[in-house]
Amino acid sequence: MPKLKLRPVAIDTYRENVAYLHRGCTFYRSEGFQALNKIEIHKEENGQPVIAVLNIVDDANITAPGELGISEQVFEQLNLPPGTAVTVKHATPPVSLDAVHDKINGEALSHEQYLKIAQDIVENRYSKIEIAAFLVGCAETGFERDEVLYLTRAMVETGDRLEWGESLVADKHCIGGIPGNRTTMLIVPIVAAHGMLMPKTSSRAITSPAGTADTMEVLARVDLLPDSLRSLVHRERGCLVWGGTARLAPVDDILIAVERPLSMDSPGQMVASILAKKVAAGSTRLLVDIPLGPTAKVRSRREALYLRKLFEYVGDRIGLELEVIITDGSQPIGRGIGPVLETRDVMQVLERKPNAPLDLREKALQLAGRILEFDPDVRGGEGYHIARDILDSGRALAKMDAIIEAQGKNPDPPLLGRLHHAISSPVSGIVSAIDNQQMASIARLAGAPLDKGAGVDLHRKTGEHVEAGEPLYTIYAAFPADYEFALDAARQNNGYSVKKTHE
Amino acid sequence: MPKLKLRPVAIDTYRENVAYLHRGCTFYRSEGFQALNKIEIHKEENGQPVIAVLNIVDDANITAPGELGISEQVFEQLNLPPGTAVTVKHATPPVSLDAVHDKINGEALSHEQYLKIAQDIVENRYSKIEIAAFLVGCAETGFERDEVLYLTRAMVETGDRLEWGESLVADKHCIGGIPGNRTTMLIVPIVAAHGMLMPKTSSRAITSPAGTADTMEVLARVDLLPDSLRSLVHRERGCLVWGGTARLAPVDDILIAVERPLSMDSPGQMVASILAKKVAAGSTRLLVDIPLGPTAKVRSRREALYLRKLFEYVGDRIGLELEVIITDGSQPIGRGIGPVLETRDVMQVLERKPNAPLDLREKALQLAGRILEFDPDVRGGEGYHIARDILDSGRALAKMDAIIEAQGKNPDPPLLGRLHHAISSPVSGIVSAIDNQQMASIARLAGAPLDKGAGVDLHRKTGEHVEAGEPLYTIYAAFPADYEFALDAARQNNGYSVKKTHE
Repeated sequence: MPKLKLRPVAIDTYRENVAYLHRGCTFYRSEGFQALNKIEIHKEENGQPVIAVLNIVDDANITAPGELGISEQVFEQLNLPPGTAVTVKHATPPVSLDAVHDKINGEALSHEQYLKIAQDIVENRYSKIEIAAFLVGCAETGFERDEVLYLTRAMVETGDRLEWGESLVADKHCIGGIPGNRTTMLIVPIVAAHGMLMPKTSSRAITSPAGTADTMEVLARVDLLPDSLRSLVHRERGCLVWGGTARLAPVDDILIAVERPLSMDSPGQMVASILAKKVAAGSTRLLVDIPLGPTAKVRSRREALYLRKLFEYVGDRIGLELEVIITDGSQPIGRGIGPVLETRDVMQVLERKPNAPLDLREKALQLAGRILEFDPDVRGGEGYHIARDILDSGRALAKMDAIIEAQGKNPDPPLLGRLHHAISSPVSGIVSAIDNQQMASIARLAGAPLDKGAGVDLHRKTGEHVEAGEPLYTIYAAFPADYEFALDAARQNNGYSVKKTHE
Repeated sequence: MPKLKLRPVAIDTYRENVAYLHRGCTFYRSEGFQALNKIEIHKEENGQPVIAVLNIVDDANITAPGELGISEQVFEQLNLPPGTAVTVKHATPPVSLDAVHDKINGEALSHEQYLKIAQDIVENRYSKIEIAAFLVGCAETGFERDEVLYLTRAMVETGDRLEWGESLVADKHCIGGIPGNRTTMLIVPIVAAHGMLMPKTSSRAITSPAGTADTMEVLARVDLLPDSLRSLVHRERGCLVWGGTARLAPVDDILIAVERPLSMDSPGQMVASILAKKVAAGSTRLLVDIPLGPTAKVRSRREALYLRKLFEYVGDRIGLELEVIITDGSQPIGRGIGPVLETRDVMQVLERKPNAPLDLREKALQLAGRILEFDPDVRGGEGYHIARDILDSGRALAKMDAIIEAQGKNPDPPLLGRLHHAISSPVSGIVSAIDNQQMASIARLAGAPLDKGAGVDLHRKTGEHVEAGEPLYTIYAAFPADYEFALDAARQNNGYSVKKTHE
């Protein structure tokens, strides 16, 4: 096999591995490569290859004949110095594609088949097209319950797994869709202050205006490596970090990168994705929060119950004892939407400020209470009171401060966006509904979560009175383009229903 | 809106438009662009934008801040000199994606919905992921008959349409799957010699070892533009060209580019794809050949009948009078598989050589006869005899020579691959079956159709006797790597079933 010399090309191709070959390269012609062919790049004879899509180059300044140009992503994965000689082959199509076709044809797949698919996906053997086919195939045919279990297992087995060396490792998860719902940043300090282990790994926002990791980052570093995390967690009994530094169920991240642009979200996929991350993160007990409401992700009790059973079925079989709680998802929780604003709400609750949002405090206490009851020494029904004591005594705040210090306090916390505008009520009356989706969408358009100071601050919640001309909420943004987008969206649909009061 | 200066980047990204933006470009940050975001590149304020996927560059030698790098494909589509100032915006997601989600959920779509999807696809608004979702959605849910009609219409309406100014424009199509089945190159000269108009546009091979365009190219130019074609066609009454120079149902090409790596091929998709191309090519009468056999594309009479009805239903409603003929697809037709070898077979039949493959001759005469009966002056049942007279009198050969001259004779026809090896029968007996798929696969591995001289030459057909050690076929290749691939495949499965004769 002829060899090509590696040449880094400073192009960021995001989640897609791209390699560059000059059209005049004898190798190109003799092997019959074409643009968009998939190739295997081998460091050693029998090592694991890195797979990339080929682009053909007509400019020797980018990649010359005899060289193999590699995008930043490939350079990182290969981890070899420029100029290293590598072997390149046509990538063999993933064998597990047969199983994908079976799925498209409506068949149920086995654990072995899901494992093969997951392995091929992790090894970059699937193109985005093939991943989309798998996802749509699963969405349309649906999963049998056991298939969700198999997929979950396959996702865990193809990644790393954290070990905490204790039998009770608490975790919580909210299936999302409710803006401002930042309870995790309250629950972790409460539970950790009680002494229960809660090493929380969270995601960044995917389709929402803020994830827990985005919000915690306003206060502290969240990108700690698993090794440096261990002593911290055992000392403080908890942490609030981003799960992306460890290879926890990496298949899930790859699937999500394709799911997102397709706005696909099947229940089976969701349950597998959540539980695989939790098992990989080393959790043994889990509280799942399913907010229910007309503009929430889950809109009927039937759907919520279906999800609960599915969580229970898979959780029991994968060794994750879990409880599902269905909560009020009729409107945003707290006042702020967006990392800086949500951090403000959280700190107000921890600091027991008189203006702290009550709904956020109450929900956090309820969930924390349920988690505290994972402790065999806590009597059923006592969790809530213990949680409230921990919060009201200031122990939760002290724990939060300790966790922030341990993770590395943010020396230069981001500020609220300097552009802001209040959206007023066109009529006088009682707020009868707030559209979760529309509020999330306005906050995202304003720049959240990328711009931590962007978002929406709610001045009225459901059931409150508003006069015509009084502000319903304020939009914050950092950049003019985002600002205009968000204002346009709010002008088209302000997300509030106000029931006129009769004079 | 700020402007960016166009800078061509000599990278061939095939069917994917890619644009490059420097990470340090103020524009990049202020607009919140990310790698793999889709952007719109505007030449004028209200013109049709060109859509591209964004890669982020960290090397000013490739694209500097203030510049917009564009891949070769984008440069061609924009058709603007380097340095031209253009406006760049976030691409709005295609509105028709909603319809794709409806399809995934099992709903039937309207003509309007298919038209919107087709328009968005033609304007590059769909990512490959979204196209895959559409295709898998269609494959799984299936089409109602009317949906196939709507999709066909939508594909025609979003491309160009050739006009020949005559009411009888004959065409033929074989749904494929039978290697060596090069009847078109015999039918066109026969039908044109009779005086019937048959301006044949063909595709290149997609998954087969040779398409009619690939094979005709051995003899003559096939990439004639529609304008230069018109006078030629009216003078010679026929042509054999590649359909890719006109924008005939361009959506179909884009769909196929995604279908192929997924190996997807639903009946509705196929019928829409074929009929849209024919209507766009200006044909008014069509003969569809469906080969039936255990290793053909269509393997049961039931399937063949289903396809026939679907062709008839859509054809009738779209103004294309068609006839469907079900033929013997039990083994390859003729002897050669691959462009050079198939050309040899065709010319042997036209030149009435004693060793010309009889099965190819017979099949071509039958199909040509059916097409000649489109002529109201030809009595039912007489077509075959007229076709035979035209062939045997040498008029078909003369017409073929005239068409080759008119299209532009290939001055330097490709030769058979210099590497060759005969595959022998391990036993003595009667050939009982030849696997179409395996023979096609060996020919492709040998390099066909990219290497026109590569392929397989069959020495035995079904029903013939072979002694142990006598060659079944010879593999031809130009490049050692291809040659080895093809030999390996033949050694693993030679594609022949030989029934031992008792001594």
